[in-house]
Amino acid sequence: MRNILVAGGAGFIGSHLCDALLARGDRVFCLDNLMRGTKKNIRMALAHKNFAFTQGDAADLAFLKEYMGRNEIDFVFHLAANSDIQASAMDPQIEYQSTLSTTWALLYAMRENHIRQFFFASTSAVYGERCDENLTEEDALSPISYYGAAKAASEAFIRAFCHMNDMDACVFRFANVIGPRLTHGVIYDFIRKLRADPTTLQVLGNGTQAKPYIYADDLIRAILQLHDKASGVEVYNVGVESCTKVSEIAEIVCREMGLPDARIEYGTENIGWKGDVPRFRFDLSKIHATGWRAEKTSGQAVTVAVREALACRR
Amino acid sequence: MRNILVAGGAGFIGSHLCDALLARGDRVFCLDNLMRGTKKNIRMALAHKNFAFTQGDAADLAFLKEYMGRNEIDFVFHLAANSDIQASAMDPQIEYQSTLSTTWALLYAMRENHIRQFFFASTSAVYGERCDENLTEEDALSPISYYGAAKAASEAFIRAFCHMNDMDACVFRFANVIGPRLTHGVIYDFIRKLRADPTTLQVLGNGTQAKPYIYADDLIRAILQLHDKASGVEVYNVGVESCTKVSEIAEIVCREMGLPDARIEYGTENIGWKGDVPRFRFDLSKIHATGWRAEKTSGQAVTVAVREALACRR
Repeated sequence: MRNILVAGGAGFIGSHLCDALLARGDRVFCLDNLMRGTKKNIRMALAHKNFAFTQGDAADLAFLKEYMGRNEIDFVFHLAANSDIQASAMDPQIEYQSTLSTTWALLYAMRENHIRQFFFASTSAVYGERCDENLTEEDALSPISYYGAAKAASEAFIRAFCHMNDMDACVFRFANVIGPRLTHGVIYDFIRKLRADPTTLQVLGNGTQAKPYIYADDLIRAILQLHDKASGVEVYNVGVESCTKVSEIAEIVCREMGLPDARIEYGTENIGWKGDVPRFRFDLSKIHATGWRAEKTSGQAVTVAVREALACRR
Repeated sequence: MRNILVAGGAGFIGSHLCDALLARGDRVFCLDNLMRGTKKNIRMALAHKNFAFTQGDAADLAFLKEYMGRNEIDFVFHLAANSDIQASAMDPQIEYQSTLSTTWALLYAMRENHIRQFFFASTSAVYGERCDENLTEEDALSPISYYGAAKAASEAFIRAFCHMNDMDACVFRFANVIGPRLTHGVIYDFIRKLRADPTTLQVLGNGTQAKPYIYADDLIRAILQLHDKASGVEVYNVGVESCTKVSEIAEIVCREMGLPDARIEYGTENIGWKGDVPRFRFDLSKIHATGWRAEKTSGQAVTVAVREALACRR
């Protein structure tokens, strides 16, 4: 039985990962500072005999060293990060502390404890404004948001720690991930706005921004399949081939909320906020070559995520 | 008259830059924690009416905010870093603190003070083990040392801060820089070893490692020419087209020290230490297109640097 640390394990994606690891028989040590994660997300996991939750900060190096050693950790998943790009656009310190310092501290504590296997949740935002269906894992990174920068910076340190300490790391550059337990982002915003005023939906940007949305279950399947297969640093773009426009999301939300007559008002900019990447696609051939492929298209993922969000807040 | 902050201004390269900026009429605010920099390096500058030295840490954000505001800084040069890759291979914390945190704090303090122009001393080490004469500024970074990672991470944050705050940054990826005031590295090591034992020179690695060495004066000329010409983030590889092998450096040092009969003993590895990049070249066409070109070849730079090192320690 492997002892697995999931940093950020009470968050949106982290909590789904904990559930999946428990289901396949691992012992899961969930670490979360509960700044964005919640106890509610790990309600089911907390009842499992192989699950141990600790409220703590993955940027706290002294704590991590002791914690990893005491629990004889074999594998570290790093999903602790700020996940709200809009918030950190106002205060970049959030990314330095929550997204980069956590990576640094986890890697350093792994080195001290001779732990050799790492999984890192990176992001398509590391590529910045580049938008190209041929954008592969070998291309240069040019982040434009503090969030993208903190993830790119994390990747740089992962490379050095792996080389210097013979560690292996699997790095996933996620597209937008949606599904149960999501607490912010465009779907959540639209529902919140329409609940406050069912007649009008005001949209940041002109609605033409288009991104691939991947459903959480599809992502978790990819993580389970590939997290421990890396030799050195192995990077994968992870997403779906289709994209969904913001205007389409607005229409889906209105329809699913039974508000077909709500007036949708668009802004004039082609971005929602500074640092936003308006259109994004990347090449998925590397991960598709492993046999994995998302089951849901971007549009299916959005529709299902909207229904779930509405169901659990009724 | 521009008010220029040179972080790391009492260091090897920083002090040459201070001298050059003073010579062309700028007001220079030199900030250095004197961990690796020295007062001796800025002895001439200290006598200049337009030079102000402050001993302080470029990772100290609260200090920087006040210091930049009080001195009405127009332009920030960032040359503060750990410069000893061998040292940080043992203790990566050095890079996180001295190399990355300084970049973060300088950028953040610039943002607070609405300072828009930045120069960053990056390194060829960001490319890692890739070694290719065609390696351009557009290629992906894959550092293998903590030093290279901290510089690559710094570049990621520079991109985000520039995009988010309409700053301009000129980034130079240096080859190995040598010249007066150099305090460590292969030339310095060989001289020190031969002074301790003039009969034998023990070399780390098998002597086949070959790198381009650029002379400090050539680098400073490039900085003066290009530092304030960037629009957005402009990155340049900066070096010389020729390379010098470690075995050649050993022979030059023995010859210049008048020890032609010293026995040179090589190791068996093709690297000097873990994280070392054994052979390195990169494409210089972008900087050559600006009209700049190094005057000294790599071999000339080594010979002159050896003579200077011997002269000033006699």
